[in-house]
Amino acid sequence: MNIFPKNLIEASDLNKKNLYQIFTKAKYFEENYNPKEKFNDLKGYTVALAFFENSTRTLLSFELAAKRLSAETLNFIASASSLVKGESLADTIRTIDAMLVNMYIIRNQYAGVPYFVSTITNNIIINAGDGKHEHPTQALLDAYTILKHYGKIEGLKISIIGDIFHSRVARSNIVMLHELGAEIGLYGPGTLMPQHLNYWNAILHNNINEVINWSDVVILLRLQNERMQSGLLPSMNEYIKFYQVNLANFTKKDKIILLHPGPVNYGIEVEHCLTKQHNSMIDRQVTNGIFTRMAVMSLLTNIEDK
Amino acid sequence: MNIFPKNLIEASDLNKKNLYQIFTKAKYFEENYNPKEKFNDLKGYTVALAFFENSTRTLLSFELAAKRLSAETLNFIASASSLVKGESLADTIRTIDAMLVNMYIIRNQYAGVPYFVSTITNNIIINAGDGKHEHPTQALLDAYTILKHYGKIEGLKISIIGDIFHSRVARSNIVMLHELGAEIGLYGPGTLMPQHLNYWNAILHNNINEVINWSDVVILLRLQNERMQSGLLPSMNEYIKFYQVNLANFTKKDKIILLHPGPVNYGIEVEHCLTKQHNSMIDRQVTNGIFTRMAVMSLLTNIEDK
Amino acid sequence: MNIFPKNLIEASDLNKKNLYQIFTKAKYFEENYNPKEKFNDLKGYTVALAFFENSTRTLLSFELAAKRLSAETLNFIASASSLVKGESLADTIRTIDAMLVNMYIIRNQYAGVPYFVSTITNNIIINAGDGKHEHPTQALLDAYTILKHYGKIEGLKISIIGDIFHSRVARSNIVMLHELGAEIGLYGPGTLMPQHLNYWNAILHNNINEVINWSDVVILLRLQNERMQSGLLPSMNEYIKFYQVNLANFTKKDKIILLHPGPVNYGIEVEHCLTKQHNSMIDRQVTNGIFTRMAVMSLLTNIEDK
Repeated sequence: MNIFPKNLIEASDLNKKNLYQIFTKAKYFEENYNPKEKFNDLKGYTVALAFFENSTRTLLSFELAAKRLSAETLNFIASASSLVKGESLADTIRTIDAMLVNMYIIRNQYAGVPYFVSTITNNIIINAGDGKHEHPTQALLDAYTILKHYGKIEGLKISIIGDIFHSRVARSNIVMLHELGAEIGLYGPGTLMPQHLNYWNAILHNNINEVINWSDVVILLRLQNERMQSGLLPSMNEYIKFYQVNLANFTKKDKIILLHPGPVNYGIEVEHCLTKQHNSMIDRQVTNGIFTRMAVMSLLTNIEDK
Repeated sequence: MNIFPKNLIEASDLNKKNLYQIFTKAKYFEENYNPKEKFNDLKGYTVALAFFENSTRTLLSFELAAKRLSAETLNFIASASSLVKGESLADTIRTIDAMLVNMYIIRNQYAGVPYFVSTITNNIIINAGDGKHEHPTQALLDAYTILKHYGKIEGLKISIIGDIFHSRVARSNIVMLHELGAEIGLYGPGTLMPQHLNYWNAILHNNINEVINWSDVVILLRLQNERMQSGLLPSMNEYIKFYQVNLANFTKKDKIILLHPGPVNYGIEVEHCLTKQHNSMIDRQVTNGIFTRMAVMSLLTNIEDK
Repeated sequence: MNIFPKNLIEASDLNKKNLYQIFTKAKYFEENYNPKEKFNDLKGYTVALAFFENSTRTLLSFELAAKRLSAETLNFIASASSLVKGESLADTIRTIDAMLVNMYIIRNQYAGVPYFVSTITNNIIINAGDGKHEHPTQALLDAYTILKHYGKIEGLKISIIGDIFHSRVARSNIVMLHELGAEIGLYGPGTLMPQHLNYWNAILHNNINEVINWSDVVILLRLQNERMQSGLLPSMNEYIKFYQVNLANFTKKDKIILLHPGPVNYGIEVEHCLTKQHNSMIDRQVTNGIFTRMAVMSLLTNIEDK
């Protein structure tokens, strides 16, 4: 059966069949991209970009994806304060609903907000990142980038390095890449690893050379400065020494690619020069983000296909 | 004669004939609404949304209304500080005029600003709320909502409950609903009532049960928190006890509908559960806001019709 | 040869031939302007408006110019803080590049930022004002305004009055008007004049009556309030006495026009009543700004013409 979900709130909303529908559609958009002609998939749709948390790149990516499908977009960048009173958020959504909006792209500092919104509107919801929960379209563009490079994902060894515990990108990636048949390895400081590792069904690595040697793909995470301040890391130098991917350790492996969701903390989680190498996918991830987001929006609105 | 005004600054700009022109046009837009096809009434027009005061719902409503008529919109959300120097506002308007903008939608914390702007530009002005003066498109959508429900406005008993004194919504509603032949009743704390009540030509009610029993329509106003702080209300509990519309008092009346301009202070001016009842018009008001604003914009620009 | 530059970063990027290409194209847009039909010169282009410094009029002017050429616009108003770390700006640009954006309009408080951006992207750059360096499209619209009034620029006597030292408008104007064959005169307080005046190849004037009498065109500059605070001016009254253009001194000259880049400090650099006279070009400058910016955008993207 070819069932596509109504919303995209977390990676587990998409089974392997859905994922390949998205990749096929993204490839179609990529190959038929013509700046002079928009696609018509969302013609007549009004897409509300409800970003309750600062974001430049994800917001621009969704906005451009929607516009290239001929949607009308509404930027609705609310202050985080209105989230404290859940009732007020529900009210806001009901009001925007009544203005005949069709789709919400929601980013929020609190986990669960996109799901909560999906309980009060019949319109389509796409989670653009909620707290430490998930960021499923980042996982989609990562998977699409890996698929384009290797021609497959099944059987690949993919490691995620850094602050796994606080990362919604890691959560979405682990679920989605498992569904696609990859093996997952994790590496990071003990204080930044999730407590119940068995639950993740991932291999835990013990040093940076080992994890690089094991990997076909390395997904680096951004180290947030607040981790230092909250006492979870003894010193930045120690983090760099034990967890940084750099020219010395990364180039020992021949067949490997580097992904990073951005923005990169150069000199912290990765040495700057590496991001310009042929096996850095960082810029391609951004471009693929446009096409995969176009694909998700198109498939979520294409009721006939469901 | 079929004279339509140049601007919409206050409710008295529109006579009964104009009002029914707007309702007829709004009904046309509502019945012919097709998300896949925009209307062309404002094709080629550039509409500046000059909001000098925070507003999410009114701004979005005008923005969507303009876009659905094929207008180009310019969001021009200025800081209130520039208002202090009247000269600077005049200058700003002259500058935007020189950029070939055609229409201004103006919200401002000071009464009279939309009128002032109309003295320095020949372009069309719509008042989207100015200080404690007027908010005529809110009154239009309220009247359209009532007309759709009852099939007429003439002879209806319509009450407005709450902080009448500080409410631009009340001012616009009283003028417009009188023009349409309704009887107006008012109810609220003495400290929040206008001083010269005779001027309003409205019936003053003395308790919540009496006003509900009298009314075919109740328009509730939002109680601003600052009223408490400024000492105009002795206590919130007292306000709730004497002025709240709730399940106990509202459901005693059979044939009655509830309107509120939003956002609602649940638990203060109205009990939450009431807003979900079949006779709550709150969500329909928002949708009707789109169609009535489209109608006003279309009629103000349609010179041939004047 | 008909060579048009790739970017517009400073006035010297444009030779006399390029300048007349722009004026011809601007005239074409002005004469064929029809609000009901957009031009298609930038159809399919995505223009990022990257304003790292507050600006209402320049931002709106570029936004409207781009939209009237059928471009998609992205407002990207970044906080100035991200400029401190040059690496981060480079990163941001690479990210937006990867989203298939085609043109950047950049305003920045630091001189050199548009040039720096041009070294990291192949997309088109237009400088919308960088620090005290240049503001070339302001000079273009000034020149076009003068050309329309006098039918020529060659041989005209054009003076610039005010804070020359801190003005990017003055820098661009001097270079461009020289290229077009005008004579340049300068007048302002000694503390606000550039140190190496020979470099400018301009005539230095000594009092307000003299400079007005000498001029066919006066370009006034805005006096920033911070000049007073930084001790560069002894008193505002003295500035007004010696440098203000007013009814008493300006009307002594018959054939003269007044330009100002806006916003005007009325009562400081110019008496208010003068800006409403027939020989004030201030509003026409704003309108011409739309057409000259449309012309630049169109010519920079029109590869066949180069």
